[in-house]
Amino acid sequence: MAGNSIGQLFKVTTFGESHGPAIGCIVDGCPAGVQLDLDFIQSELDKRRPGQSRIVTRREEKDRVQVLSGSFEGLTTGMPITLLIPNEDQRSKDYDHLKDAFRPSHADFTWHTKYGHRDHQGGGRSSARETAARVAAGAIAQLVLQPLGVQIHSYVSQVGAVSTPLNYQELDFSNIEKTEVRCPDLEVATTMIELIKEVKKQGDTIGGIVSCCIQGVPAGWGEPVFDKLQADLAKAMLSINAAKGFEYGSGFEGVGMKGSEHNDLWEPGFKTRTNYSGGIQGGISNGMEIYFRVAFKPVATLLQPQWSVQKSGHPVLLEGKGRHDPCVVPRATPIVTAMAALVLADHYLRALAFSAAQKGV
Amino acid sequence: MAGNSIGQLFKVTTFGESHGPAIGCIVDGCPAGVQLDLDFIQSELDKRRPGQSRIVTRREEKDRVQVLSGSFEGLTTGMPITLLIPNEDQRSKDYDHLKDAFRPSHADFTWHTKYGHRDHQGGGRSSARETAARVAAGAIAQLVLQPLGVQIHSYVSQVGAVSTPLNYQELDFSNIEKTEVRCPDLEVATTMIELIKEVKKQGDTIGGIVSCCIQGVPAGWGEPVFDKLQADLAKAMLSINAAKGFEYGSGFEGVGMKGSEHNDLWEPGFKTRTNYSGGIQGGISNGMEIYFRVAFKPVATLLQPQWSVQKSGHPVLLEGKGRHDPCVVPRATPIVTAMAALVLADHYLRALAFSAAQKGV
Amino acid sequence: MAGNSIGQLFKVTTFGESHGPAIGCIVDGCPAGVQLDLDFIQSELDKRRPGQSRIVTRREEKDRVQVLSGSFEGLTTGMPITLLIPNEDQRSKDYDHLKDAFRPSHADFTWHTKYGHRDHQGGGRSSARETAARVAAGAIAQLVLQPLGVQIHSYVSQVGAVSTPLNYQELDFSNIEKTEVRCPDLEVATTMIELIKEVKKQGDTIGGIVSCCIQGVPAGWGEPVFDKLQADLAKAMLSINAAKGFEYGSGFEGVGMKGSEHNDLWEPGFKTRTNYSGGIQGGISNGMEIYFRVAFKPVATLLQPQWSVQKSGHPVLLEGKGRHDPCVVPRATPIVTAMAALVLADHYLRALAFSAAQKGV
Amino acid sequence: MAGNSIGQLFKVTTFGESHGPAIGCIVDGCPAGVQLDLDFIQSELDKRRPGQSRIVTRREEKDRVQVLSGSFEGLTTGMPITLLIPNEDQRSKDYDHLKDAFRPSHADFTWHTKYGHRDHQGGGRSSARETAARVAAGAIAQLVLQPLGVQIHSYVSQVGAVSTPLNYQELDFSNIEKTEVRCPDLEVATTMIELIKEVKKQGDTIGGIVSCCIQGVPAGWGEPVFDKLQADLAKAMLSINAAKGFEYGSGFEGVGMKGSEHNDLWEPGFKTRTNYSGGIQGGISNGMEIYFRVAFKPVATLLQPQWSVQKSGHPVLLEGKGRHDPCVVPRATPIVTAMAALVLADHYLRALAFSAAQKGV
Repeated sequence: MAGNSIGQLFKVTTFGESHGPAIGCIVDGCPAGVQLDLDFIQSELDKRRPGQSRIVTRREEKDRVQVLSGSFEGLTTGMPITLLIPNEDQRSKDYDHLKDAFRPSHADFTWHTKYGHRDHQGGGRSSARETAARVAAGAIAQLVLQPLGVQIHSYVSQVGAVSTPLNYQELDFSNIEKTEVRCPDLEVATTMIELIKEVKKQGDTIGGIVSCCIQGVPAGWGEPVFDKLQADLAKAMLSINAAKGFEYGSGFEGVGMKGSEHNDLWEPGFKTRTNYSGGIQGGISNGMEIYFRVAFKPVATLLQPQWSVQKSGHPVLLEGKGRHDPCVVPRATPIVTAMAALVLADHYLRALAFSAAQKGV
Repeated sequence: MAGNSIGQLFKVTTFGESHGPAIGCIVDGCPAGVQLDLDFIQSELDKRRPGQSRIVTRREEKDRVQVLSGSFEGLTTGMPITLLIPNEDQRSKDYDHLKDAFRPSHADFTWHTKYGHRDHQGGGRSSARETAARVAAGAIAQLVLQPLGVQIHSYVSQVGAVSTPLNYQELDFSNIEKTEVRCPDLEVATTMIELIKEVKKQGDTIGGIVSCCIQGVPAGWGEPVFDKLQADLAKAMLSINAAKGFEYGSGFEGVGMKGSEHNDLWEPGFKTRTNYSGGIQGGISNGMEIYFRVAFKPVATLLQPQWSVQKSGHPVLLEGKGRHDPCVVPRATPIVTAMAALVLADHYLRALAFSAAQKGV
Repeated sequence: MAGNSIGQLFKVTTFGESHGPAIGCIVDGCPAGVQLDLDFIQSELDKRRPGQSRIVTRREEKDRVQVLSGSFEGLTTGMPITLLIPNEDQRSKDYDHLKDAFRPSHADFTWHTKYGHRDHQGGGRSSARETAARVAAGAIAQLVLQPLGVQIHSYVSQVGAVSTPLNYQELDFSNIEKTEVRCPDLEVATTMIELIKEVKKQGDTIGGIVSCCIQGVPAGWGEPVFDKLQADLAKAMLSINAAKGFEYGSGFEGVGMKGSEHNDLWEPGFKTRTNYSGGIQGGISNGMEIYFRVAFKPVATLLQPQWSVQKSGHPVLLEGKGRHDPCVVPRATPIVTAMAALVLADHYLRALAFSAAQKGV
Repeated sequence: MAGNSIGQLFKVTTFGESHGPAIGCIVDGCPAGVQLDLDFIQSELDKRRPGQSRIVTRREEKDRVQVLSGSFEGLTTGMPITLLIPNEDQRSKDYDHLKDAFRPSHADFTWHTKYGHRDHQGGGRSSARETAARVAAGAIAQLVLQPLGVQIHSYVSQVGAVSTPLNYQELDFSNIEKTEVRCPDLEVATTMIELIKEVKKQGDTIGGIVSCCIQGVPAGWGEPVFDKLQADLAKAMLSINAAKGFEYGSGFEGVGMKGSEHNDLWEPGFKTRTNYSGGIQGGISNGMEIYFRVAFKPVATLLQPQWSVQKSGHPVLLEGKGRHDPCVVPRATPIVTAMAALVLADHYLRALAFSAAQKGV
């Protein structure tokens, strides 16, 4: 109700503030018998953690995950799984100058207006630190999906005006982790990294696009009407801090096409010749690759001074302090993967439940 | 659970198939005391109904709405409101040739795979006819929002490659209903209409974009984390048949901007100089206009013959039959408005509930 | 949210007022492929309908059910099933004298306090007429459960001080429908009928108990912690108008027993020697008969004059008007069955979903 | 979905196993600005904790609660509140002999059947230890309700055949905590304590009844149809381990009464002369005291040897080991209070939300 939960059957609730004792989540509805591979969960967190490379924030958070419940002898039990990530490198003092100011394009003003009493340190609960809990939960979702052959590949396809001309069929996803910017087109990756460093030098920030390609989803996942698979993916992606847009399959480009060009004609074996549908038709997966793109705005925290406003309404010149990312997309890829995994695990269980009931009748 | 409901406090469940006796919805959670203006509800349905102009399908559905419950002496009572729209101009025979075929880029294959036994006539429940129930429910949501000064303006901003260069601040929304294509830039509207007619003549279809600008939403609507206002809008929009993308504020264009350009600086009175944030910061409305764009693909049903495939796997040449739209966006505008209204009414009640509780403490 | 829905996977929402055009329900989440036996649904409604015998209200409602959606060629499709029951024998004038008065032990005062503007005719939505929609929905739930061998037997075990000494093992359930009071102990039934007639002659009313025995539920239905099977049954039963108590298995009598007497010892084949557990252990069915009892208060509407109070606070002498039941339990048995069926169908689907997920991993 | 959550607006999810690292809960939807009185939360936990007196289990659990999120400078922030209670006095070896055996009238068989892989130590998640998390969450609910004047008094009214003849109006609730059995009728309390000691000496156990009287609830809490206040109370109570029955107001005794005796006649000021309605009419509170009773069975774990059965189906003689309660009701009173508080806080927020919306229109 209060917006801290997502999913119907595979349900995740996150908790915690960036400068409190810990953040974490409860995963409720995970099937019993899943091998809870802590190394894999940690490796996903490591992709998101601050301080991992030269092009991300220098904050140092080890983000070590602990399991408090729901596991017995290494396997899930069907009971709620609680994951805890203690907060470590908090410099609350970095935020003292923000107590009474509303930073531009941040959550400060709206949260203050809505909540009044709020933890302003590091953004409190509006901080992107909350997404670490999502990554941990999403890793469990991936552990549910992997045995089915589902593979989620999130990568950076654009930084500022620099983008790869290659589409998902032309890319080698094994390149994603080869550069710190996580663009599998390695030449373009180099240019992206240069751009980010340049922007960082200026104390400025830049936007980007994370693309995602999901392989191995069988036909039949997704619900009609409101909970279409693309609708739940869109919500999940737009719930990520700084996300501004979502498109799947032909997306905004499909607008300029005619039906006779855009229709995906059937081939033998119920494959389609093209995949403008993006793997989803009528809200339900059709067995082809699911692909979509998520736009991220430039980070709002600059290392330049910016004019802003105080609670009192008076203008104030904010100095650029703190340790922040010049570009969010390299660290956003594991979050996109996690959110996709949460949506898919939920729809997998919903599809299973429906088909079990159908057979049961 | 089964995907036929949307909303937490203002909850709508739709029902019905395109060729059954009726479609309709239950609106549960509507406040008591709202004047149930049936003329307004009907006028919204009339914007969506087939046969209204030369550039939409010639099917004739009067779409007369009936109220079965939840109203007493013209006012809502807080009890579930049931709206019924009988189906009229059904030509089920038009669909006989589709019983065993999967049309390209339709829901036929995926729904057959998932449901097995399904009502194939006119797409059954996967038909866009279902959206009439949403428009009726959305009209009630608008009746809840109007006394607060909230106004939702949905309009066609692009058809194929023809788009208006004007942004939401430069348009006169009172022009929207002046042309059948519902583009308030009247010159561009003429070109759009010509394009649609041309495409129709070819037996083909074309995509388009519906833009939406919402005025009068106060600061404070939206929930943190997963139920951010933009996330729920994205889901609502992507749940509309044929929608392929959603962006709000700066959207995909914001990707190319730097933080120093993109940040919306504060002005006196807690307004912002620019509005790249699209009226939402940290998931919560900030009192500025909310605006977003929804991409729609070209309609998949053509009046040209198309190769397709039968359940058996054999290819089949489908003739172009039936009465369909050459371009979906003119009739999609009331649906976008309805879905926006449903999301806003729900978040209005959630914000009210939160703030009432805060004061109650 | 607003309390008009029940169930997680097999979800029912009812709508309608006693003196509006119709009442009805949406059943969302019913598996596809269930034979929608309208005669059976109607026969369940007939057990609840007014005017069926000498010991119930003389109001005449035929309660003919219509199916508006979710069925194709006689089978459910997995889409929402909408059932409609038009209202017929409404004598709204019977209620004119109640417009400004609060009847004792009715919903009048509390509903007026909460809702202000309410449909007072015949109790509006607080009327037990709403339970007809539950009976219709419950009949569909029974159609889901019957192929599994689940059988629900609800019967009258007590009227006033007259009760059957026989427990569920000693009764012949095929006797239930043999008398109008629906007590399978036929001798006791005769005494009950006499008591009800006597009470009716006095213009008075009397309470009673409906017992329920459910056979054929396999081990494994029910969820841990909050959604224990008995918890959901208790809620479902206490949601019925006039219900005052619920007990299962040993119930209140078990309080006086020692653990060494009360423990159900295991026999070969994982049966238990006794069944004080009432077929449920740790919130989950154990394969034995589930049995419980529901207490109903005497109907509050009398045919005697009663002192009451007006909105203004002034006392008023209410004459005994209208057509009401002297004892609610004979017509409550199909409602108890329906509510039990709704809970069981939901937990059946939840158990199926869980075990499908477990196998899927 | 998986049954680990309760509440719509004031939502609680519990987690943890009796022999894992910790148990706890997330309270989501608590209003902002509530003073988070840790001493009060701890004092409620202390009423439930083992080892507190001679008539309860000797296990030693300090049950020290920690707050991980949702609080800032001592006040709630509206964000999810996470409470953690580390497990301490675990003697997992005490349960080795139960790994392959199903204890009579326990959750062992049903949980094994449903979950297969389960944490059998101390009952794992089926252990009543889970209720400590409920007590902590319920204490927060009480902190929400107390400023409104709502007071919840749970007390032991019966142990075995020993019961107090006094009803809620005749008891002095300030006596409840004066004896370890928590019966405010102090003479009867002495007899109860003797009975429990006697039963304990025999290695046996005994059932009991917890009564609850709630003062200060205004008229207007509760929802129509399925979420009636008594329905949600019934569910909450029956979700407590070992609960077998629930009745409110006149309860099962009301069955024997006539309508003319049972009807609560109005007095000036919209009070009622009698309160057989138990403070709830038509599912909604009427401003009078709410009172109900919950039956608890005798604890199934005995200190006598009992015949039971192994997974293999072979009989096994279980020795009476471990440290268990001879009678559950003294420690159940804070749990009944907690569950009542959770239901009331939720319905308080729901009523507030409804009335805020009504005024907002």
